[in-house]
Amino acid sequence: MERGNVFARIPADLADERFDEIVTAGAVKVERIVSEGHSSPAGFWYDQERSEWVLVLRGSAGLRFDDAAEVVVLKPGDWLNIPAHRKHRVEWTDPAEKTIWLAVHYDNAPHSLYVPAA
Amino acid sequence: MERGNVFARIPADLADERFDEIVTAGAVKVERIVSEGHSSPAGFWYDQERSEWVLVLRGSAGLRFDDAAEVVVLKPGDWLNIPAHRKHRVEWTDPAEKTIWLAVHYDNAPHSLYVPAA
Repeated sequence: MERGNVFARIPADLADERFDEIVTAGAVKVERIVSEGHSSPAGFWYDQERSEWVLVLRGSAGLRFDDAAEVVVLKPGDWLNIPAHRKHRVEWTDPAEKTIWLAVHYDNAPHSLYVPAA
Repeated sequence: MERGNVFARIPADLADERFDEIVTAGAVKVERIVSEGHSSPAGFWYDQERSEWVLVLRGSAGLRFDDAAEVVVLKPGDWLNIPAHRKHRVEWTDPAEKTIWLAVHYDNAPHSLYVPAA
């Protein structure tokens, strides 16, 4: 059976943000993200097909949304549910310690079978 | 936008284990579970339609599987991916402090549209 620890195997070298897939199934992906002072490139916005539920486990981060003035600050235990196509960017992550996130990407639509009209 | 903290609003009275839905979408449910010395009733086994990815955030717990001799011990940061219909039970949770779990229930099947044969 698959098992692990979200705080284990954190690479020392984090030149780039690190993304590790934990679960990948039909309509869901669970991943761990490790940041260390990283932020989204200037002018870059995430515009995702899927919704994303994100939780900060360690460290801290600031997220900006294109339709809001305020940066949303996330500290350990804080979560945010980001609807699909809501444009956002990582404004900052803690420069002094590694920030560990858990992200659950999921389809919003109910996955009922398509039954054509008679 | 929905936001919250997984360590907030923990009820003082935990006569029963506590389940709080955080996200409910078509093929996924994210929930927080709070236990305090609880375990599954004698002889009870979970036998779930969906797979479950479970993470212990605080506290500790022991899970038993009907096809394995050993109890799997989970401490903070430990996760386990439990396939659908793999029978399991909570053998114990920490009696001295509250155990906070995050569970992601998900469908395994890819959710492609059903297209009937011509």
